[in-house]
Amino acid sequence: APSYPRYTREEVGRHRSPEERVWVTHGTDVFDVTDFVELHPGGPDKILLAAGGALEPFWALYAVHGEPHVLELLQQYKVGELSPDEAPAAPDAQDPFAGDPPRHPGLRVNSQKPFNAEPPAELLAERFLTPNELFFTRNHLPVPAVEPSSYRLRVDGPGGRTLSLSLAELRSRFPKHEVTATLQCAGNRRSEMSRVRPVKGLPWDIGAISTARWGGASLRDVLLHAGFPEELQGGEHVCFEGLDADPGGAPYGASIPYGRALSPAADVLLAYEMNGTELPRDHRFPVRVVVPGVVGARSVKWLRRVAVSPDESPSRWQQNDYKGFSPCVDWDTVDYRTAPAIQELPVQSAVTQPRPGAAVPPGELTVKGYAWSGGGREVVRVDVSLDGGRTWKVARLMGDKAPPGRAWAWALWELTVPVEAGTELEIVCKAVDSSYNVQPDSVAPIWNLRGVLSTAWHR
Amino acid sequence: APSYPRYTREEVGRHRSPEERVWVTHGTDVFDVTDFVELHPGGPDKILLAAGGALEPFWALYAVHGEPHVLELLQQYKVGELSPDEAPAAPDAQDPFAGDPPRHPGLRVNSQKPFNAEPPAELLAERFLTPNELFFTRNHLPVPAVEPSSYRLRVDGPGGRTLSLSLAELRSRFPKHEVTATLQCAGNRRSEMSRVRPVKGLPWDIGAISTARWGGASLRDVLLHAGFPEELQGGEHVCFEGLDADPGGAPYGASIPYGRALSPAADVLLAYEMNGTELPRDHRFPVRVVVPGVVGARSVKWLRRVAVSPDESPSRWQQNDYKGFSPCVDWDTVDYRTAPAIQELPVQSAVTQPRPGAAVPPGELTVKGYAWSGGGREVVRVDVSLDGGRTWKVARLMGDKAPPGRAWAWALWELTVPVEAGTELEIVCKAVDSSYNVQPDSVAPIWNLRGVLSTAWHR
Repeated sequence: APSYPRYTREEVGRHRSPEERVWVTHGTDVFDVTDFVELHPGGPDKILLAAGGALEPFWALYAVHGEPHVLELLQQYKVGELSPDEAPAAPDAQDPFAGDPPRHPGLRVNSQKPFNAEPPAELLAERFLTPNELFFTRNHLPVPAVEPSSYRLRVDGPGGRTLSLSLAELRSRFPKHEVTATLQCAGNRRSEMSRVRPVKGLPWDIGAISTARWGGASLRDVLLHAGFPEELQGGEHVCFEGLDADPGGAPYGASIPYGRALSPAADVLLAYEMNGTELPRDHRFPVRVVVPGVVGARSVKWLRRVAVSPDESPSRWQQNDYKGFSPCVDWDTVDYRTAPAIQELPVQSAVTQPRPGAAVPPGELTVKGYAWSGGGREVVRVDVSLDGGRTWKVARLMGDKAPPGRAWAWALWELTVPVEAGTELEIVCKAVDSSYNVQPDSVAPIWNLRGVLSTAWHR
Repeated sequence: APSYPRYTREEVGRHRSPEERVWVTHGTDVFDVTDFVELHPGGPDKILLAAGGALEPFWALYAVHGEPHVLELLQQYKVGELSPDEAPAAPDAQDPFAGDPPRHPGLRVNSQKPFNAEPPAELLAERFLTPNELFFTRNHLPVPAVEPSSYRLRVDGPGGRTLSLSLAELRSRFPKHEVTATLQCAGNRRSEMSRVRPVKGLPWDIGAISTARWGGASLRDVLLHAGFPEELQGGEHVCFEGLDADPGGAPYGASIPYGRALSPAADVLLAYEMNGTELPRDHRFPVRVVVPGVVGARSVKWLRRVAVSPDESPSRWQQNDYKGFSPCVDWDTVDYRTAPAIQELPVQSAVTQPRPGAAVPPGELTVKGYAWSGGGREVVRVDVSLDGGRTWKVARLMGDKAPPGRAWAWALWELTVPVEAGTELEIVCKAVDSSYNVQPDSVAPIWNLRGVLSTAWHR
């Protein structure tokens, strides 16, 4: 057997582009796949996501790599072996984030502590259901460590009665409902808004949106079981508290209107399953709220308590952070009471392929992307322009037909167009929902100090 | 008593502007009020609406004119008397529109036969409830003559049973519900879209929208009474037919989803009252449908029949006419099946004052307008720009708070700003609804061959 040079993971990690060569690892072997990048059947952009690191987390997402000829093919690119592993850094006992779970290397990280990351645009619209490992992660605080056997969900019932439900009880006492729903952060596409004027918030690209098949108890069933009526007339709210708490002990909190919580057609879940498995820790093991059609911030994570109140959640995430304001409002003039807390989100879309600045070969080009609207409003059309918005073509929508008013999941879309050599394309998309709402043309007139609701045409 | 010259109504009608003098009539007296125009307490734009014609229809809308000093003041401008009336033209027996009712002279007429007219922008947002005489009229066909004692509403119940309800039965058998709702034609603001490229349809300005307090039976109550269940699972539709029929005998028809018809929160009415009186003939005496939050075309007029069907109404008004398409679709390529029938409308707003091109005196200027959104989504903010959309201010919203998801009526809004002499203003408005939907910046990218859904920023 030939003897190979040894490399550390750090050395491998320096080889991430064709210019510096593209290295990857599999097991303890190191490969230089530079010459294979353009031959990769899934496209060069996909294999480059693994450049400088391990192939296994990516192969786990795409079963085709499990076939024997793939490993055989890889062998011819072997250039070395990994040095016996360096000892992992000792966890810092003072770091409140030391207990956070491991993450997929393909995620595009916007903040490490708390962990906030989005799937890379290249993979975002490849599948209708986002793999759990790539689902965008919006953590406000460290990930709580929960022992499933001691987990209890507290439901404050009417008349001072309190319900305490174990995970097993939540699973066994209530029928399991399943809903395919897209969740989107209010800050999705914030980075485009920051380019107009600086805003406060994480610099999300187009990936603070993902779709999963959620399974769990219906919030309606749990509230009825706790003794609440079908209807309350006072404009009440259902308030949620998470197990994640800030250093002062204040838990993450949010609320939704009582009517939505009780409506059978609103499909609000206390979810304990995500794409057929239990919730991963980053995705709020053991139980999270899923409020379809509503900003992700209300789908409270690591749920510990549900209560009904005449008022919205008093948390700052309900009262201040997730609200929209006029472009004329700045940090000196903002009055949080003047704007409603974001619930249903407006219609949204983005191009996921090709990426901005990419060179596209002449011939047929397939433009891909996603579109989604809040409130269960179905996406009925996506218009795509190749000339910056002067002329438009209608994209092909993919996805199942949902019942009216319950289109909780995104539509993926495609448009195949001929491209001549030497043309510069300015690709733009805009979507229309079933209430014929459209996206605004430009960013500046919807700019707001927090950079939320960034839904201008994507270009 | 002095003797006055005699004038015909036609002669009076030639005096409609300060240049040609402003004449009006009251009773049989003729007045030259040119010198009073600028002194009119309601503003010169309002008195000019009556120029060349009778004061009475306008005074009927504004009770203040009933005070004795108003007539006294008017007397000083008397210049003549009307000639004994010319005989009215004999009705043309061949004209299917000969039986149409008289109309208010203030209406801005877009088509005489069938009659289509809108309130003048100067009066549109003066009152929260639009006076019946000024409510926009969208007739597709001649106004049917209905004898109230012989009127019957047919409801096709389940299992072949048919219900036939007289007007008295509709009033007495079902509790009266009252709802304040704005109706808007899909073609409102079409004239702005025509300026981009020609479209087919009536050239509505900003006034194909009006608000009334409607009273009637709940459609839900009537359908339950007819034997229909609370829920059907097959995506059924409730189909309406009007008494107005085209020359081939096809009645006006439209439909709404069954779920909306049965939802207590959707407030769908079979209305027989409008602002506290029975429906005027132009406004669909004796019974019309009112579907709050939904395009006016589904609020079927002169209702004669209600039925439940697995399919939408087969009428061309449901299948073809009221649908939105991409700007790339023209009359050669349109495939009606590719777009959903318009139901809920997107967020809309317009400036009603000042009018385009108007000279505004330096000092304080009050900009006024309306804003509305479909689906019961409340208007939460209106931004107004005086510089064509570069900078914005937030307008003051007026109107009562509606229950969540049931904001069926428009919001009127105002913004008072200082104006320096010699500045040219480019006034623009845009509204935001409770799902944070916004209006698109410009018209061309939402252009469509029928000129519907014209909701770009109003400028």
